[in-house]
Amino acid sequence: MNIALAQLNYRIGDFEQNVARIIAGIHKAKEAGSDLVVFAELSVCGYPPRDFLEFDDFIEKCYKGVLRIAEECTDIAAIIGSPSVNPAEKGKPLYNTAYFLADGRVQSLVHKTLLPNYDVFDEYRYFEPNRLPYDVVEYRGRRIALTICEDLWNIGDDPLYVRNPMDELIRLNPDLLINIAASPFHYGQAADRFDVLRRNAITYGIPVFYVNHVGGQTELLFDGGSMVINAGGDLVSCLKRFQEDFSVFDTEALNPGPFQDPEDRSVISLIYDGLVMGIRDYFHKMGFSKAILGLSGGIDSAVTLVLAAEALGKDNVKAVLLPSEFSSDHSIKDAKDLAVNLQVEYEIIPIDESFRAIGHSLEPLFRGQPFNLTEENLQARIRAVILMALSNKFGYILLNTSNKSEAAVGYGTLYGDMCGGLSVLGDVYKTQVYELAGYINSGREVIPRNSIIKPPSAELRPGQKDSDSLPEYDILDKILYQYIEKRKGPKELLEEGFEEATVKLVLRLVNTSEYKRYQTPPILRVSPKAFGMGRRMPIVGKYLS
Amino acid sequence: MNIALAQLNYRIGDFEQNVARIIAGIHKAKEAGSDLVVFAELSVCGYPPRDFLEFDDFIEKCYKGVLRIAEECTDIAAIIGSPSVNPAEKGKPLYNTAYFLADGRVQSLVHKTLLPNYDVFDEYRYFEPNRLPYDVVEYRGRRIALTICEDLWNIGDDPLYVRNPMDELIRLNPDLLINIAASPFHYGQAADRFDVLRRNAITYGIPVFYVNHVGGQTELLFDGGSMVINAGGDLVSCLKRFQEDFSVFDTEALNPGPFQDPEDRSVISLIYDGLVMGIRDYFHKMGFSKAILGLSGGIDSAVTLVLAAEALGKDNVKAVLLPSEFSSDHSIKDAKDLAVNLQVEYEIIPIDESFRAIGHSLEPLFRGQPFNLTEENLQARIRAVILMALSNKFGYILLNTSNKSEAAVGYGTLYGDMCGGLSVLGDVYKTQVYELAGYINSGREVIPRNSIIKPPSAELRPGQKDSDSLPEYDILDKILYQYIEKRKGPKELLEEGFEEATVKLVLRLVNTSEYKRYQTPPILRVSPKAFGMGRRMPIVGKYLS
Repeated sequence: MNIALAQLNYRIGDFEQNVARIIAGIHKAKEAGSDLVVFAELSVCGYPPRDFLEFDDFIEKCYKGVLRIAEECTDIAAIIGSPSVNPAEKGKPLYNTAYFLADGRVQSLVHKTLLPNYDVFDEYRYFEPNRLPYDVVEYRGRRIALTICEDLWNIGDDPLYVRNPMDELIRLNPDLLINIAASPFHYGQAADRFDVLRRNAITYGIPVFYVNHVGGQTELLFDGGSMVINAGGDLVSCLKRFQEDFSVFDTEALNPGPFQDPEDRSVISLIYDGLVMGIRDYFHKMGFSKAILGLSGGIDSAVTLVLAAEALGKDNVKAVLLPSEFSSDHSIKDAKDLAVNLQVEYEIIPIDESFRAIGHSLEPLFRGQPFNLTEENLQARIRAVILMALSNKFGYILLNTSNKSEAAVGYGTLYGDMCGGLSVLGDVYKTQVYELAGYINSGREVIPRNSIIKPPSAELRPGQKDSDSLPEYDILDKILYQYIEKRKGPKELLEEGFEEATVKLVLRLVNTSEYKRYQTPPILRVSPKAFGMGRRMPIVGKYLS
Repeated sequence: MNIALAQLNYRIGDFEQNVARIIAGIHKAKEAGSDLVVFAELSVCGYPPRDFLEFDDFIEKCYKGVLRIAEECTDIAAIIGSPSVNPAEKGKPLYNTAYFLADGRVQSLVHKTLLPNYDVFDEYRYFEPNRLPYDVVEYRGRRIALTICEDLWNIGDDPLYVRNPMDELIRLNPDLLINIAASPFHYGQAADRFDVLRRNAITYGIPVFYVNHVGGQTELLFDGGSMVINAGGDLVSCLKRFQEDFSVFDTEALNPGPFQDPEDRSVISLIYDGLVMGIRDYFHKMGFSKAILGLSGGIDSAVTLVLAAEALGKDNVKAVLLPSEFSSDHSIKDAKDLAVNLQVEYEIIPIDESFRAIGHSLEPLFRGQPFNLTEENLQARIRAVILMALSNKFGYILLNTSNKSEAAVGYGTLYGDMCGGLSVLGDVYKTQVYELAGYINSGREVIPRNSIIKPPSAELRPGQKDSDSLPEYDILDKILYQYIEKRKGPKELLEEGFEEATVKLVLRLVNTSEYKRYQTPPILRVSPKAFGMGRRMPIVGKYLS
């Protein structure tokens, strides 16, 4: 039997386009002599559809899409994902369903049993878990165990669910396992995913055919990496990462491929590719083409500019230098050098006159007050006002250049440098931003060396350095990683050898900055724990703060 | 048996304070001769603790709190709420638990079975549902059916869950039903709540003792309204709304009280009280005392100022008039009149000079471009920059004055009038803002009549009116309510008689403004469907847009 895997980039709620692309995939598979073509979880509506699922109109459009696609399934079968209505009186109104289509109509439905409801996932918000007894899907003499994403993930040492669908399905003697998924990217996810799928293949002794989404959905990035693993647990082949792909496999010839590790790349190269895809899809799917950003001469805006130029093309990116009296000469030079290296258009708009004018209007109230954080924030906010004016006038989308370390400890100005339509580096710690710069500069000096080696500074007052207010980034980032990604508490952090005063300071800064992060742009997620939908914290509270 | 209900205002993660207050409640109940005192769901840690629940340190502190409280339970029993660790190998790591404390120690644990995971609720994110067989809690000869909030809510016509705890518990012949809750306010919630509790009393033929939280937790408001209903379904008594309260009931004398409707008040008076409590608790719990806002002479900022003065005291509120060349004389007069009426301090800071200076720095790029939305937004953003400078310099928290209609259709400037630490009216439609103004003005003219009767305008260009860009608010708000609160689709809206072009426009505006709402301040929730955590929508997407 020939099975085609179609790894596509869907747009949420765009039924016309999603259905057309699935139908095109069916025809392509038919031409390639496939018996069956497999698409991803909730492919008809895109993932994650979120609260659109609460609209009857949305669900109706999903159904119409399924029926339209089924019509095309002649001489070929297809598996697609779409919500379906729970006909029972009790329970949530919907199922997350895999539809098996053949002979021009819907042949059978399989509902997802294990509904992820952690980190960025909210599936129990919408869906009833399958409680029906399982059945295999029979097609052209093969018995298929059809499952949806999380259904295969309860195989580890610390099972999150009390039920394990494959333990029940395997009793029905399936010949192969198909899993349709919506498994978002983070830099360690492909390795986890391969491990889980491999364990399933080995445990149940049947080959696994796995189809994932690809593409950016605002903050959530899908890296594709659909794959086939044979009954012995060998990787037969893995589809491309970060782009659409399509491949046909013969179930009778599932030989081990040349590569046995789908994650044979550095973390930094994965982050780079993820961010480029994320920027590109955000713009294209929102219908925008041009980005603007403030270029300070520092490392964060430099790396953001490189990523944006790669994603959108150098002609679609504009850099703006916004010097104040506290900007150093080398910063302006570094920023210019980078723009020239990248052949990106840049403007210089000094903010002194605006700073003086606003200062003048505040003078009656500020008289006698010393220069402090207020004036620092004021500079950052004037820059934002100017960037947003350019954005509004010429249709650019402002890219935010804050990194994860700053976002974590609140080292940024709300409505100032925290502005933007999309945060590119908000899930990348400062020390990782340096690694990205190194990766970008491998071979040639794109980002001026000076931007990399100079001590980080916001340049909002004379001689300012980040280390005046914060621990050195190599210490800070380690504590942040343990607290944010690993959920370590103060006691555990002390046991790991961090200084007590530093730990207390950092945890307090993180916990008292929730109000700032609440108002930041969506952050492209590249780590297992990003700020945003995947990390939900009270603003008002009193814990480690 | 005497049962005390203790309705308290907790602070999330503030174990020291929460435990102290619970212990004080135990002593108070003991002095009042109670056999048992009941506190709310998750009272030890506060509600909602959100992802703090993922920290072992947090859970340990919850346990310590429980044990400390148990020590005080001599000659009295107490019921408190706190997470507990799921000892089973499979399933989520925690339960949402009611602890029964007596004789100085923990006597028994009851886990929540039905975990709300819709709207603002995320309980399945953290908790395993109870799967154990039920038991009653026996104390001083009484058999108590102990349940937690949602456990009683599966009694309607369209049950959301497949299990109904009381159907199982009633077989054990309990004498009374106790429910500890964290049931947030919206203007229709008290009526729903009374109905549900009443149905339980009548269906199972036993009295219901119900204890809720009170107080604001950022956007979530808890209105208290703890109550006792006798076995016949009569309301015995309802504790105060929007404030702490304490009351003792004799199980042998549960006579019907004088009022049988706990919701005997206008929607607008409820919204008013909810917003005042929400502002007050946000400030007090964050450790702030003073608010600032931009006063335009329009109705939204006028109502916000009145609410803030009521919540924080007139001496803790500052109004700032920020006129531009497009501000009308009457607007400045109306704003001043209101400040004078309320005896609130105000400042006038014209923005013309700042507008010219920023315009001048943009001139090389803007030359030849017409005045458009850019210059309108620029004014709004300069106002925000000035307000934030005052906030930074003097420690005021900026209150956002946008209403729900504007937030819905994106009629506001990001980083301009959409700024603020807290959105006061972001869940109040424009037509309801007028009703609030009427409620405030009942008896005397606090808000100048002119602010109420003049056509709404942002005054960002000559002669501008809201109705230039938007349908009239009485139409707009009706469509918004049907789409947002009722999840009606385009077909249903047309059937209700709205014009097709208007429906299309409004739905498109709502769906394409998600990117703006993503960056707005937390919004005090007063309706069944507020923007924020309770309404989760994709930003990138293509549905009705």
